[in-house]
Amino acid sequence: MFNISKPSADNDLLIQHQIDHKTKPLGALGQLENTAFQLVKVLGRQAKKLNPQVIIFAAEHGIADFGVSIAPSAVTQQMVMNFTAGGAAINVFCDQHQYPLQVVDCGLRVELNEVPNLINQRLGNGTLPFHQHSAMSLEKVNQGFRDAKSLIHSHVQEGKNIFAFGEMGIGNTSSASALMSALLKLPADKTVGLGTGIDSESLSKKVTYIDDALALHKANLNDPISILACLGGFEIVQLVGAILAAAEQRKLVVIDGFIVSVAALFAYQIAPNSRDYMIFAHKSQEQAHDVLLNELSATPLLDIGLRLGEGTGAVLALPLIESALAFYYQMASFEEAQVDNVIE
Amino acid sequence: MFNISKPSADNDLLIQHQIDHKTKPLGALGQLENTAFQLVKVLGRQAKKLNPQVIIFAAEHGIADFGVSIAPSAVTQQMVMNFTAGGAAINVFCDQHQYPLQVVDCGLRVELNEVPNLINQRLGNGTLPFHQHSAMSLEKVNQGFRDAKSLIHSHVQEGKNIFAFGEMGIGNTSSASALMSALLKLPADKTVGLGTGIDSESLSKKVTYIDDALALHKANLNDPISILACLGGFEIVQLVGAILAAAEQRKLVVIDGFIVSVAALFAYQIAPNSRDYMIFAHKSQEQAHDVLLNELSATPLLDIGLRLGEGTGAVLALPLIESALAFYYQMASFEEAQVDNVIE
Repeated sequence: MFNISKPSADNDLLIQHQIDHKTKPLGALGQLENTAFQLVKVLGRQAKKLNPQVIIFAAEHGIADFGVSIAPSAVTQQMVMNFTAGGAAINVFCDQHQYPLQVVDCGLRVELNEVPNLINQRLGNGTLPFHQHSAMSLEKVNQGFRDAKSLIHSHVQEGKNIFAFGEMGIGNTSSASALMSALLKLPADKTVGLGTGIDSESLSKKVTYIDDALALHKANLNDPISILACLGGFEIVQLVGAILAAAEQRKLVVIDGFIVSVAALFAYQIAPNSRDYMIFAHKSQEQAHDVLLNELSATPLLDIGLRLGEGTGAVLALPLIESALAFYYQMASFEEAQVDNVIE
Repeated sequence: MFNISKPSADNDLLIQHQIDHKTKPLGALGQLENTAFQLVKVLGRQAKKLNPQVIIFAAEHGIADFGVSIAPSAVTQQMVMNFTAGGAAINVFCDQHQYPLQVVDCGLRVELNEVPNLINQRLGNGTLPFHQHSAMSLEKVNQGFRDAKSLIHSHVQEGKNIFAFGEMGIGNTSSASALMSALLKLPADKTVGLGTGIDSESLSKKVTYIDDALALHKANLNDPISILACLGGFEIVQLVGAILAAAEQRKLVVIDGFIVSVAALFAYQIAPNSRDYMIFAHKSQEQAHDVLLNELSATPLLDIGLRLGEGTGAVLALPLIESALAFYYQMASFEEAQVDNVIE
């Protein structure tokens, strides 16, 4: 469904030369220099400004009824209302930088009517509990990919060139850990963390349910699409589709914390070229995030102990990413500023 | 010269309660939560918006003529011209966020005439080389403190409530390392790093000159003011004064990389209460920065391999600091958003 090619390497030398001849010591802007290189390589030398779109994918999870979270599943819908009303952390950070925010219902248990600013891309009324059933059908995975793809296309047509994705779904760290376990063939105790702050009893339940699920679905865990159907969440499926769609359109994707990084790993396994379009926002407090970042050879920009989700890490990192593009296009070269060239 | 008291602890419980009751899991915004606490504690519960001022202190160094830097001393003046013309990295990042930037001549070798936006607070025509002479007189240190204090006062009267300080001065990592060595009683090889990228020959010169200087001035390295006179730079002296002045005025200071952190350590030694007003922006690539951060019990916000100076790290961290205040004042509580309180 996605045809993703690598960004052209034709301008690599030129881009690096320009970065190296800005009025600063060689490499002195650290990771911002790598980020600038990636941005200009992907977007070409015409896109002098980032035009971001933030999207939160939300859904409910069958597993959430089994005591794996600090909050009941109903909090997913309450937080979706909070997002659309403007009261959540992600709203505050988007407002601060005037980034447009969209909220997508990928499958709340109850369909909300007449909620302004809520996009309906529902794949069902929440997933089934993955330790007892397949979370969804294969057809739902494909539908989720198609829906995400058409959403991304509409934003690209409006000129958006960088996406920050977030998620909301009580229980979705359980789904994300199960997905990671299945894809990387790791037992649950290597992929499960404290989520948003559960106690050790809930933690051991989480591990047990995931190991049960890995056993139950054993015969169907051989490819990323089947794994998503068995263990996924509706929002995670759409995240994978959205990442792939953005990469296909040669746009950047800012990857948030643990759950979005699991989606990024699926995108990478489905289409390895998608990796070139990803920028990693932050290192989450979730313990397994380190393993994921390693698998994706990723060095995130922030490491400030975030574990909120919603895309907050991605949006907090976006100003740094904008700084990278800004220095590339706006900073003077040694020659322009008549500063002694200290690098040659 | 500075009378610095600790911020009031009267509202500590209230501030923490409000942070904890925002619609997010407890602690899920990581370091932004500590930062929000500090901001509200220092500024009180009326200042709902940060009003930043960025100031670069620039000066030339006698030691720069002795092969300790990648660039000749003349680059200091060239970069000051670059700052006032708007072409440097710090200009780009300030423009991006519309932070006002001021450049202060603390002692270039040649006085520049008719340069718009350049503040004259000259303490001399560059310092003397500190391995042969005292870099400056004690009177110059005091004059630098007075000048910095009156500059900060004028900004506070205009309503500025947070400062980001940067520096420019070829050779000033040598001065900063010497100052750190003298204050912490560490040999030069523990405080010297690669600066903006010198080779091993320059590095060993740097170590030798600093150890020579520590021996030469041995009798005068018993208090921070005398140490600053023996080994300081004019810009570093004014940085110390500016940090102390901002703390005295109960305003925040965002501490940039290695050189500004050395100034922060001097401010802390002169007036320990000043520490409560400091926010640490980033962990520099300069090896001794870790030791400094430890001395100051500081956990910086960014760790992205910066080693440019100019205040770039401080300005790149400022949007995160603004995010911290924004979530405190704008994010909904569980009650306001009708979200189940998951923390009680």
